[in-house]
Amino acid sequence: MTQISPLRDFVVGLTKLYDEGLDPQTLQVKGADLLRTLVSRDNWLPDEFARPNPERYSQYLLHCDPLERFSVVSFVWGPGQKTPLHDHRVWGLIGMLRGRESETQFERDGDGRFRATEKSFLEPGEVASLTPGVNDYHLVANALTDEVSISIHVYGDNIGGVSRATYDPETGEEKTFISGYSSEETPNLWDRSRERKAA
Amino acid sequence: MTQISPLRDFVVGLTKLYDEGLDPQTLQVKGADLLRTLVSRDNWLPDEFARPNPERYSQYLLHCDPLERFSVVSFVWGPGQKTPLHDHRVWGLIGMLRGRESETQFERDGDGRFRATEKSFLEPGEVASLTPGVNDYHLVANALTDEVSISIHVYGDNIGGVSRATYDPETGEEKTFISGYSSEETPNLWDRSRERKAA
Ligand SMILES: [Fe+3]
Ligand SMILES: [Fe+3]
Ligand SMILES: [Mg+2]
Repeated sequence: MTQISPLRDFVVGLTKLYDEGLDPQTLQVKGADLLRTLVSRDNWLPDEFARPNPERYSQYLLHCDPLERFSVVSFVWGPGQKTPLHDHRVWGLIGMLRGRESETQFERDGDGRFRATEKSFLEPGEVASLTPGVNDYHLVANALTDEVSISIHVYGDNIGGVSRATYDPETGEEKTFISGYSSEETPNLWDRSRERKAA
Repeated sequence: MTQISPLRDFVVGLTKLYDEGLDPQTLQVKGADLLRTLVSRDNWLPDEFARPNPERYSQYLLHCDPLERFSVVSFVWGPGQKTPLHDHRVWGLIGMLRGRESETQFERDGDGRFRATEKSFLEPGEVASLTPGVNDYHLVANALTDEVSISIHVYGDNIGGVSRATYDPETGEEKTFISGYSSEETPNLWDRSRERKAA
């Protein structure tokens, strides 16, 4: 059985950082520390939000701040699944929970075309970051061909409401999209009656 | 199909009232206005959170404030279901969404026994309130013997973590409980991609 409390602790911690009125850069750095703690153990994600879809990768909303200052999403990759090249336009963090993910970063040239600058792999427990104006273009894939991989993404906005774009890496052609979520439900972080009974 | 936006608007509205730093009494009064708007139409509650359980009444968490300043719960009453006499110890609001609910209020005598002071019925669109020290003891029931009734309860805390009590109305005997929630999931209020596509 999973215990949801590490996810609740993460949400409460990041909410309190926002309520301190920190600037976005400091929020992202301190949020990365909280996320590293969250993905240091793989014992809290409920199965409903860890389920792969054979058709395409899944994006399950785990929490959205009620003022839409940030959102937390589990990305569930089936074998071989990957995103197109895309941007974010808000800060992001990726915490690797399970399996292995590859991230290819891109830079955009003056003529609007893209070139890959770096390919890296994320292992469980590792955290990577995305910052608009610094490294906002990437393509992410499950690095495993025979297993599910799962990473926890955190964004400095409700990513299910951000208008952004995918790109053809060859031509630079841009398509606007809003990413949406794979489920109409989110985990209940707040049933403390169970913990008290267990304690 | 239900549209979740009225519930999201309620959550955002009450969150903003808290962030203004209002006192609990003002929060409860202004929260009642927001709740009256929420239950003025019965077109937004997803079926998963409107489902009766033949065994006992259900309490589905719809939203909990991340700082646990308030929580929003759908109470789903099967025909004839009712609570025992109980208290809350935090402020509460009841907004009637569907069907008909009866509420019997009690006062506690010096010897610890209870007597019923008032019985009232809630009709769809109506809002009632509970305040510790004023009217914190009641027994709530589905007033319909052949249909489901649903009310939306709002509390000035995470009610799934509040230690409180049920009472035997005759003897005053007290039993401590924490109410918990009927589902391990909550509705996803935040998928704005669907609205934008529809717009
Ligand atoms: Fe991305
Ligand atoms: Fe009650
Ligand atoms: Mg690496």
